[in-house]
Amino acid sequence: MTRVAIIGAGPSGLAQLRAFQSAGKKGAAIPELVCFEKQSDWGGLWNYTWRTGVDEYGEPVHGSMYRYLWSNGPKECLEFADYSFEEHFGRPIPSYPPRAVLHDYIMGRVEKSDVRKFVRFSTVVRWIDFDETTQLFTVTVKDLKKDELYSETFDYVVVASGHFSTPNVPHFPGIEVFPGRVLHAHDFRDANEFVGKNLLVVGSSYSAEDIASQCYKYGAKSITFSYRSKPLNFDWPECFTVKPLLTKLTGKTAHFKDGSEAVVDAVLLCTGYLHHFPFLADNLRLKTNNRLYPAGLYKGIFWQDNPKLIYLGMQDQYFTFNMFDAQAWYARDVILGRIKLPAAEERQADIDHWRGLEEKLETAFDGIDFQTEYMRDLIPATDYPMFDLDKVAALFKEWEEDKVKSIMGYRDNSYVSIMTGNKAPPHHTKWMEALDDSFDAFQNRPEAAAE
Amino acid sequence: MTRVAIIGAGPSGLAQLRAFQSAGKKGAAIPELVCFEKQSDWGGLWNYTWRTGVDEYGEPVHGSMYRYLWSNGPKECLEFADYSFEEHFGRPIPSYPPRAVLHDYIMGRVEKSDVRKFVRFSTVVRWIDFDETTQLFTVTVKDLKKDELYSETFDYVVVASGHFSTPNVPHFPGIEVFPGRVLHAHDFRDANEFVGKNLLVVGSSYSAEDIASQCYKYGAKSITFSYRSKPLNFDWPECFTVKPLLTKLTGKTAHFKDGSEAVVDAVLLCTGYLHHFPFLADNLRLKTNNRLYPAGLYKGIFWQDNPKLIYLGMQDQYFTFNMFDAQAWYARDVILGRIKLPAAEERQADIDHWRGLEEKLETAFDGIDFQTEYMRDLIPATDYPMFDLDKVAALFKEWEEDKVKSIMGYRDNSYVSIMTGNKAPPHHTKWMEALDDSFDAFQNRPEAAAE
Ligand SMILES: Cc1cc2nc3c(=O)[nH]c(=O)nc-3n(C[C@H](O)[C@H](O)[C@H](O)COP(=O)(O)OP(=O)(O)OC[C@H]3O[C@@H](n4cnc5c(N)ncnc54)[C@H](O)[C@@H]3O)c2cc1C
Ligand SMILES: Cc1cc2nc3c(=O)[nH]c(=O)nc-3n(C[C@H](O)[C@H](O)[C@H](O)COP(=O)(O)OP(=O)(O)OC[C@H]3O[C@@H](n4cnc5c(N)ncnc54)[C@H](O)[C@@H]3O)c2cc1C
Repeated sequence: MTRVAIIGAGPSGLAQLRAFQSAGKKGAAIPELVCFEKQSDWGGLWNYTWRTGVDEYGEPVHGSMYRYLWSNGPKECLEFADYSFEEHFGRPIPSYPPRAVLHDYIMGRVEKSDVRKFVRFSTVVRWIDFDETTQLFTVTVKDLKKDELYSETFDYVVVASGHFSTPNVPHFPGIEVFPGRVLHAHDFRDANEFVGKNLLVVGSSYSAEDIASQCYKYGAKSITFSYRSKPLNFDWPECFTVKPLLTKLTGKTAHFKDGSEAVVDAVLLCTGYLHHFPFLADNLRLKTNNRLYPAGLYKGIFWQDNPKLIYLGMQDQYFTFNMFDAQAWYARDVILGRIKLPAAEERQADIDHWRGLEEKLETAFDGIDFQTEYMRDLIPATDYPMFDLDKVAALFKEWEEDKVKSIMGYRDNSYVSIMTGNKAPPHHTKWMEALDDSFDAFQNRPEAAAE
Repeated sequence: MTRVAIIGAGPSGLAQLRAFQSAGKKGAAIPELVCFEKQSDWGGLWNYTWRTGVDEYGEPVHGSMYRYLWSNGPKECLEFADYSFEEHFGRPIPSYPPRAVLHDYIMGRVEKSDVRKFVRFSTVVRWIDFDETTQLFTVTVKDLKKDELYSETFDYVVVASGHFSTPNVPHFPGIEVFPGRVLHAHDFRDANEFVGKNLLVVGSSYSAEDIASQCYKYGAKSITFSYRSKPLNFDWPECFTVKPLLTKLTGKTAHFKDGSEAVVDAVLLCTGYLHHFPFLADNLRLKTNNRLYPAGLYKGIFWQDNPKLIYLGMQDQYFTFNMFDAQAWYARDVILGRIKLPAAEERQADIDHWRGLEEKLETAFDGIDFQTEYMRDLIPATDYPMFDLDKVAALFKEWEEDKVKSIMGYRDNSYVSIMTGNKAPPHHTKWMEALDDSFDAFQNRPEAAAE
């Protein structure tokens, strides 16, 4: 029987399990599935952990999410095409839910589809080999609870281990003797630590934007942004300053490229993440920066040199959950023999075509359109429900504009679900005043919670 | 030619290089040595890094040392028998030097002995296999700079990768929603972050004692210790409180086993480290807690099931640098065929003998005497210079008593070198007032530094 290993039970790995289960339900014979997940539960990044550094078994902590994190895009853009928010919650909910609510939604679909039995939790993939003779992968894993290694062979390997967990941490002169905390966004957990402090936030990533906003919301004294290539051009509150690149630190003083200075209490490096696959041999390993079309992946999924190796969710993301679905359904149909992969040359031509388009992208809007076209290329090949992609693209653009209008207020907007056509209700509390990010506080009106 | 792989260029790995170089200088034919070191420089833990979590290549950060760290034991206890502090610095120096000064000392010996050529830096050991047929180890490493894996075979492998780098981090109810920083000692870097704060320090390790003292020295508002088995019984300043085990956290309030409470701003887990060897198969991997005689190691060095696998420095440590030397010289002589290892049964009897003694230990003084006997067992078997071990044991005990007399003042004491017979001069500044821990500030009088 064909055996498929899936590395990771985050949204991408779960999409793969769900894709097979969906085919199985419609009568298809599905292969043997084994999903290895190093955490003790599923959910990937959406599984909040208070831990930083390494976990209780000495493995690098996967979690990069923090307390008080709210969806940074409208939930209408990431809705599953086969499982709407309304189906899950029994009624429409606001457009920007906090982490716990999105987590509940992602989990809802997989819990209903009875795929938990395929997941081996607390099991980290240590090493993967491919044998040219047998055409099988040997996957060596460690059962962290038993503290034991073992190996099994598989016909296919699906790498769904994420790429927002291994921080990229540049060095700045003087940082080694900065008298205060220096941390990467990956280790950020609780804004309360920075109440009353002057923060230097290096980088122009989503993390920079969101962590700075949050620290302001919870009482940081001032925020100084430092950017390398492009500043975060929003209408920031008065205590924010935007500076060019940090050149050095002397004591608590940060020096910038334009000669200006700022005295800060903590340095937050929001400098991005590395694609990191310590369990893969060089000839199987994707090496890429964070971009919309990583090299070497046919359809953004199949490892060109060995298409039995499948990567999910490895691109930079406007689309998230429903893109992982589109990829997982496609990968499933290749494994089931429903889609036949073309020969290597033809695959390469397709990769080159997309890379060519990607290279011409200039604005965020171009990026949104590009990833929309990518979705349009994938979905019709499978039975994943098609949805109005142009509406999603338009919504992403509206979101970008809403942020420009009000970076602290954009999460108070409401949008129409592309899947159900219903408009989201406004949230009972404005984001700036919503300090409690728990599931209960979000679902109940404050009065109801107090009763 | 015999090939020896050494994992790690910290004090233990460097002791192994130095042991071979010393034999070579006296005319012995030495094997081919390759030392793999994941950091970009040698020195192990003594190499300070500002980084926490993972390094620039996504590898877990090895460093657990922090700024303003001063030797926590008298340097006279760890002096190399073949390279005194006086030889290195040209004059006697005070008994408790800061990290940078000890680092300089350790480096001095190896720099003089021209062994740097054996070290491959920025190279992390990923995997080690042993082939029963060829009796060779295959060592697979990653050249981090080139981002490439490669493998080589060896007759012997010396594991000198340390065991104070992978934190042991227990969970306490409520810690996931504590509104402030939670960190393990491994991630502690700069006490300035905690000026004016109320700190909860969990654990009774050396780290707990030292980090708390240091935070007090730099201006923390209060320290609350929480212990599981035994309290840190010192004459703490007034702003210190000693509590039994933490049972839970509610908001900023810590609750203890005796029903008492404390409101704290940060939680520092000084809860020890794990022996962690992600690069070793189960049948080669040492599994132990931190103790004076780990199971399965003949002479505390040779892996009982395969004595070509050698472990250095894996025991809990009173003795450090000169113990790593004693072990490395012994291992060298086994590899050179000068010492013949007895048969498995006899080795096991020796292990059992030592483990039996270890089990009877009750007090810290018993532990000191035990490790002194261990040293006495190793040194005479090789040409490592014997020194007055009883004097070292007496000095360790004096140090323990000095700490009881004054936990904030013990570092102002001076002792006589066992190697040279000369007494250390007092330091120019009392430890409580010595805020600058740099090499220059220590070596020069403050006036001189200011000139
Ligand atoms: C701070 C932050 C905020 C974000 N906010 C949003 C948002 O608001 N909306 C949105 O749509 N997206 C957001 N994202 C994007 C996020 O990438 C996706 O939502 C999604 O989590 C990606 O899913 P994934 O399954 O590909 O990867 P992950 O969620 O990273 O899951 C990968 C899984 O693989 C496991 N794993 C890794 N290595 C191994 C191994 N060796 N062995 C076994 N298991 C392993 C991990 O434990 C994890 O469970 C955010 C990302 C970050 C970092
Ligand atoms: C906070 C702290 C304070 C201390 N203070 C003192 C003190 O005052 N006095 C004292 O005598 N001792 C002190 N120690 C004890 C310390 O353990 C020893 O001094 C010494 O550093 C141990 O040397 P080592 O070579 O065994 O291990 P380490 O110093 O840990 O060196 C191990 C080396 O192996 C490398 N390595 C690890 N894994 C790999 C891999 N997979 N591939 C390649 N390389 C790898 C590491 O990068 C490192 O360079 C302290 C320890 C700590 C944690």
